[in-house]
Amino acid sequence: MENGSRQWRFQGNKRLSLTSAISLRGIVEMLMGNLSTDDPRPTIPLGNGDPSQFPCFKTPTTAEEAIVDALHSAKYNGYAPTSGVPSARRAIANYLNRDLPYKLSADDVHLTSGCLQAIEVALAAITQPGANILLPRPAFTFYESRAAYENLQNTVAMVVINPGNPCGSVYSYDHLELVAETARKLGILVIADEVYSHITFGSTPFVPMGVFGSIVPVLSLGSISKRWVVPGWRLGWLATTDPNGILQKSGIVESITGCCNITSDPATFIQGAVPQILENTKDEFFSKLMGTLKEAAQKCFDGIKEVPCLTCPSKPEGSMFVLVKLNASVLEDISDDLEFCMKLAKEEKVVIIPAGKR
Amino acid sequence: MENGSRQWRFQGNKRLSLTSAISLRGIVEMLMGNLSTDDPRPTIPLGNGDPSQFPCFKTPTTAEEAIVDALHSAKYNGYAPTSGVPSARRAIANYLNRDLPYKLSADDVHLTSGCLQAIEVALAAITQPGANILLPRPAFTFYESRAAYENLQNTVAMVVINPGNPCGSVYSYDHLELVAETARKLGILVIADEVYSHITFGSTPFVPMGVFGSIVPVLSLGSISKRWVVPGWRLGWLATTDPNGILQKSGIVESITGCCNITSDPATFIQGAVPQILENTKDEFFSKLMGTLKEAAQKCFDGIKEVPCLTCPSKPEGSMFVLVKLNASVLEDISDDLEFCMKLAKEEKVVIIPAGKR
Repeated sequence: MENGSRQWRFQGNKRLSLTSAISLRGIVEMLMGNLSTDDPRPTIPLGNGDPSQFPCFKTPTTAEEAIVDALHSAKYNGYAPTSGVPSARRAIANYLNRDLPYKLSADDVHLTSGCLQAIEVALAAITQPGANILLPRPAFTFYESRAAYENLQNTVAMVVINPGNPCGSVYSYDHLELVAETARKLGILVIADEVYSHITFGSTPFVPMGVFGSIVPVLSLGSISKRWVVPGWRLGWLATTDPNGILQKSGIVESITGCCNITSDPATFIQGAVPQILENTKDEFFSKLMGTLKEAAQKCFDGIKEVPCLTCPSKPEGSMFVLVKLNASVLEDISDDLEFCMKLAKEEKVVIIPAGKR
Repeated sequence: MENGSRQWRFQGNKRLSLTSAISLRGIVEMLMGNLSTDDPRPTIPLGNGDPSQFPCFKTPTTAEEAIVDALHSAKYNGYAPTSGVPSARRAIANYLNRDLPYKLSADDVHLTSGCLQAIEVALAAITQPGANILLPRPAFTFYESRAAYENLQNTVAMVVINPGNPCGSVYSYDHLELVAETARKLGILVIADEVYSHITFGSTPFVPMGVFGSIVPVLSLGSISKRWVVPGWRLGWLATTDPNGILQKSGIVESITGCCNITSDPATFIQGAVPQILENTKDEFFSKLMGTLKEAAQKCFDGIKEVPCLTCPSKPEGSMFVLVKLNASVLEDISDDLEFCMKLAKEEKVVIIPAGKR
């Protein structure tokens, strides 16, 4: 029997095969695959914002209990409504309302499978032929390279990641207000990626972009992944922080609902656990977490100073990252950051990634 | 401050807003919204394959225990690898291997957020400019209407849903073999939607399409949603049942991995629970479930015979659906199936949906 591929009509989607090579996950998996298997030392995985495997970053017992309670209730085994379980949407609205000068309702919150799917939904909802968005840099090279080929006159949105990945920066109230006013002048909306909300340990407190929702409509993206150290639970949200209802009038809300209609949801019992998780976690858990992250950031910053080929432009004040500049010219046989990362993984079992790929 | 939508550059994605109106979930939510709130009778929700809210369709305790064990192990709070936790991929391969004449490995299985995401991944992986797929009917009107505008000479795949939703049909071994030979002649692959695998209660046993994987490459889609009555747990898979490695050679496998790289995953601890769920569930659970479904199908079939405007072309032998033909001409003030469904929801709190929308 012939089984060569020539007789078959189908072939892989080249656009998708390409993403495999340049996506963050593709890079991390490539580096993990480059680890020496006969090296007895433990791997030090610093390639993504996931410290959950270290005992000092364990999620609180209350969060686990909330999941078990929701599971055992047998109320959350079935399909959830399109935009999420109402009690979870309400709990997230209340959670966000603690920091806003106006009130969100449950209808303003759409649950997603982690913050990643919130990004997917946000980008899908604003997509128009020829439209593009402004992205921070360094952040997402894949989207940057796509944006370069687009007509910038059709810019419809800008993305603000705060606290910042990978720079570890935290924007001040005044800075965010300027961002809001600029977006308003341009007539574009703001996509605020706040997956690291409240993960700050420097002098600048976290201010949600939604605070400026009356200046410019904001799509606020968040998750329990980072603050509760459970990125694997895949529970995120997209909230329309827009007291003037502009996103409703412009059809963006309808598109968000449409997108939620045709994409998969977070597990229903995890949704069911959200009210307990958000309400029952003690402040001590968060302050201990911030203390641990602050200490780790300081150690990292100090250690980098000792390495001749590395410099750290600024000490991180938030998120779970530090951005480091590599001077490859002082190194032998290493031409760029990707090669440095590959060799570091192979020789030292330390996984870090090129900033552009984060 | 002016806040009319004209000064803003953005607007909703019209394609997405449209799906809201015609997707299954959009229809179900519209019907649920049409229920009379002052009617004390309980709602009878027959609009989707989710009987989990009825006590006779409770998932086995072993499945719940598997989730709790995985959660408490604290090993599954972090991000999962792109295509899923290795032990879960292996367990699903073993589960599928019980019914196959060759052996799948863990690498052949990609975990997805329910079977819905497996469909998304499968369709994305084969997408080429101008390509289209053959779909069963009645099944997905949205895709049907899209396919009508495409060049049928570029057909690259056909979809087989077995056991069938919404017909309740179960295809025989001989029928599926003919399907495989036809697809081979056409040079196209088969996407086998087997979310209702093993949910059969008539005279025809379930045969997985992958049995014919050496005739034609098959993308087999499945889930724990239906057989374990936990659609809200969002755990599905896409398996390449293709012993000749044609999907590998044609780049489809690479595209699947690329798609998994840029989409969200099922919750990691639910992935971690998969081996225990698949291995520890007793046969009695499944036989009791089939008995309950068989009884429900018979009652439904008999009941429909008593209703003048309804006929049932064939008694269901599998899945969780029965297809009913409506003769609207004998009814007053009802012109089509959607209107019938809307009025049935409003007057009787019974939610059923037009077959084309399922």
